Amino acid sequence: MTRQLSLNAFLHDTGHHEASWRHPDSAIDRIHDIDFDTENARIAEEAKLDAIFFADAPGLWGATPFRPAGHLEPITRLAAIAARTERIGLIATASTTFYDPYNLARLFSSLDTISKGRAGWNIVTTQSEAVARNFSLSELPSASERYVRAQEFIDVVTKLWDSWEDDAILADRESGRFFDQEKVHAIHHVGNHFQIEGPLSQPRSPQGRPVYVQAGSSNDGRAFAGRNAEAIFTAHQTIEDAQAFYADIKSRAVAFGRSPEDVKILPGISPFVADTRAEAEELQRYVNSLTVPAYGIAQLEGLAGVSLAHLELDEPVPVEVFGQAGDVLDNSRSRLQVIANIVERDRPTLRGLLHRLAGARGHNVVAGTPTEVADIITEWFQNGAADGFNVMPPLYPQLLQEFTQKVVPILQDRGLFRTEYTGSTLRDHFGLARPESLYGADANEEAHVV
Amino acid sequence: MTRQLSLNAFLHDTGHHEASWRHPDSAIDRIHDIDFDTENARIAEEAKLDAIFFADAPGLWGATPFRPAGHLEPITRLAAIAARTERIGLIATASTTFYDPYNLARLFSSLDTISKGRAGWNIVTTQSEAVARNFSLSELPSASERYVRAQEFIDVVTKLWDSWEDDAILADRESGRFFDQEKVHAIHHVGNHFQIEGPLSQPRSPQGRPVYVQAGSSNDGRAFAGRNAEAIFTAHQTIEDAQAFYADIKSRAVAFGRSPEDVKILPGISPFVADTRAEAEELQRYVNSLTVPAYGIAQLEGLAGVSLAHLELDEPVPVEVFGQAGDVLDNSRSRLQVIANIVERDRPTLRGLLHRLAGARGHNVVAGTPTEVADIITEWFQNGAADGFNVMPPLYPQLLQEFTQKVVPILQDRGLFRTEYTGSTLRDHFGLARPESLYGADANEEAHVV
Repeated sequence: MTRQLSLNAFLHDTGHHEASWRHPDSAIDRIHDIDFDTENARIAEEAKLDAIFFADAPGLWGATPFRPAGHLEPITRLAAIAARTERIGLIATASTTFYDPYNLARLFSSLDTISKGRAGWNIVTTQSEAVARNFSLSELPSASERYVRAQEFIDVVTKLWDSWEDDAILADRESGRFFDQEKVHAIHHVGNHFQIEGPLSQPRSPQGRPVYVQAGSSNDGRAFAGRNAEAIFTAHQTIEDAQAFYADIKSRAVAFGRSPEDVKILPGISPFVADTRAEAEELQRYVNSLTVPAYGIAQLEGLAGVSLAHLELDEPVPVEVFGQAGDVLDNSRSRLQVIANIVERDRPTLRGLLHRLAGARGHNVVAGTPTEVADIITEWFQNGAADGFNVMPPLYPQLLQEFTQKVVPILQDRGLFRTEYTGSTLRDHFGLARPESLYGADANEEAHVV
Repeated sequence: MTRQLSLNAFLHDTGHHEASWRHPDSAIDRIHDIDFDTENARIAEEAKLDAIFFADAPGLWGATPFRPAGHLEPITRLAAIAARTERIGLIATASTTFYDPYNLARLFSSLDTISKGRAGWNIVTTQSEAVARNFSLSELPSASERYVRAQEFIDVVTKLWDSWEDDAILADRESGRFFDQEKVHAIHHVGNHFQIEGPLSQPRSPQGRPVYVQAGSSNDGRAFAGRNAEAIFTAHQTIEDAQAFYADIKSRAVAFGRSPEDVKILPGISPFVADTRAEAEELQRYVNSLTVPAYGIAQLEGLAGVSLAHLELDEPVPVEVFGQAGDVLDNSRSRLQVIANIVERDRPTLRGLLHRLAGARGHNVVAGTPTEVADIITEWFQNGAADGFNVMPPLYPQLLQEFTQKVVPILQDRGLFRTEYTGSTLRDHFGLARPESLYGADANEEAHVV
């Protein structure tokens, strides 16, 4: 069979465009309503998408009065959505810096069991001083410290997910034995950050381990991704940048002894889709016109660490303003590098730059006909830039529907995307193997007497 | 209107009797299946019960191969159930010793919003050394240390739940203002255990605050309950014990400036219901016969801290074996006191005692006709022993159905229990007021600029 695309719908408030909520048809009164989430999830499921996804931070990170703020906790949201969907994957973001591994292992294992094998964990380290102050920390640990903790965290979580062998439950009414003690293992983890005895409080989940997803594109993030991630959400404006990232991550994975197919790379794409290109561009222009420039400028100033007060909205942005972005050291820097590249390449006005960023915070915003959008996806997919896409509709549900009803059928006609689900788990959808437990016949000395 | 009973269904594996899973009609293959949970929840909802409830510990506390073990995490379970029910309350246990307050505040606030106002939090401090070792602790903090932390924990959680005023969201497309900064408050909490800046990452939930539930009956637990709890799950074998507890808690609540009606006291009742008493008793005898004595003895030895190896199964238990229970200092002690009272009062054989405890771990197990069970409930309710009951069916769903289909109608005929829900939230069901936010017009100096 032809290599198949993965398509993930990134659910986000009324849509990924920062001003989408001001659109007269936006669902701004429903962003905290699980029924709205469910409707979007079902649209994605009807189109046979791989998964839906929620970003997250345990705090009001980057909130301003000019945008929707205050989203619900994503694992609970996905558990509720799981109860009303059948096949679509369910990916939640959660932070290794601000969770306990035992609690988090339980939450994702439960989500995986509740959904009958559809859970994925987007692993983040949460780069926010404001969030640190919600967890009794006076300052945020450095990026490298956070990634060291993150690695130990996922090692612990993996051991916990594996701590019940798949056939540990006997449920033998006759003998009165519910489980086999030899197949439920303490993990005896002793590390620098965590000392965790285990086993997990519940049996192994349908996928064995929920899918490991990651989104960091810093150096630390790429190393972490090459070692651990099975799917990566990433942001690129051009196919060349995406190809370079794609090649880098695949080679890092190989260096860790993994196969390139073990890591699915999914760049963001935020499509304004309409029957004609003029309509698509008109919609984009209209939504851009709803932005609040003062908000966009404040965001940009925060990211760049410089004042932009001296710039005129309708004059080109001087290249040197973002020239100091330098090495890609952390996620802000890598996002800043994307912006510096836009400024250098396209020389936009400040207003033009704000509109570019308003679409999807540095992700690739496109406006065009269904065929044009499908062409971009096909080109990236067939030329070493993507294994699929993290679809970020500017306006929910309308522009998700345009995508699923008009773009997806073209991709299906080209043989690049499924017309029916062929499996039942997120691992099935992504084409990822179900991992064996670390514990098994060879590790019986670890057996735990509970 | 006549004072109304509260009835809560405590969901637990195949049922509360420890051997229920060996019954040929048990759902032992479905205890990790959310569809089974949902079916039980819907039975309770059809009967207009106030709530369903899950116990919890973040570890395999008390697991043995002879009983079902490894339940799923309860908040995610209830989020899924919320999506498939409309009215019934949803109460999850979570530990103040092993959670971060910010994460927990988010999870319950989300559950409350997802369920449109049906969440309750059963607050526990988790008395388990084994669990402590899942959280990088070499030993469990003492009961008094755990309760000091618990008080600060719920103070933080309460502030976080209140940190967005109810009318903080503007969603004003015209002005571009989504929320009112003056109505979203930092909490600036600085305490011995936690330093939490806030605000919560999401708006105030439908109930303002999920319902505070508590189950500890130790001295520390009673003091905590009198101050904080809005509903209490408790275990008593006799109406006299229940009356004493009831009076004690109500007076403690009054001492904290609360009204006696602000605290609902719900003893456990585990009913074997059948059309005749002989049938009910025969079912109880049959399920008792499925117990594994070695398991029950081990549990009892662990609780009492003494060996029972010298006792004969079919000889009366000497009174002095449990005579050293002494003061009620913690939950194990108070449970042990219940057992000591049974031994002294009823002089059971060891096998008889094990059967008594097998039913519901010290809760009141009754076997009788629907009218007999309704009579017990009515007597306790009308004589200062209970505001309602935590119903613990020995076998799910069969004995929940017997209760809802046969006992509940009798209570309804007596005018003691609703025939339709009169409100939509758990607070409505329990007759509890919706709390105002701590922050408001009088506290504007706390306003947080995000």
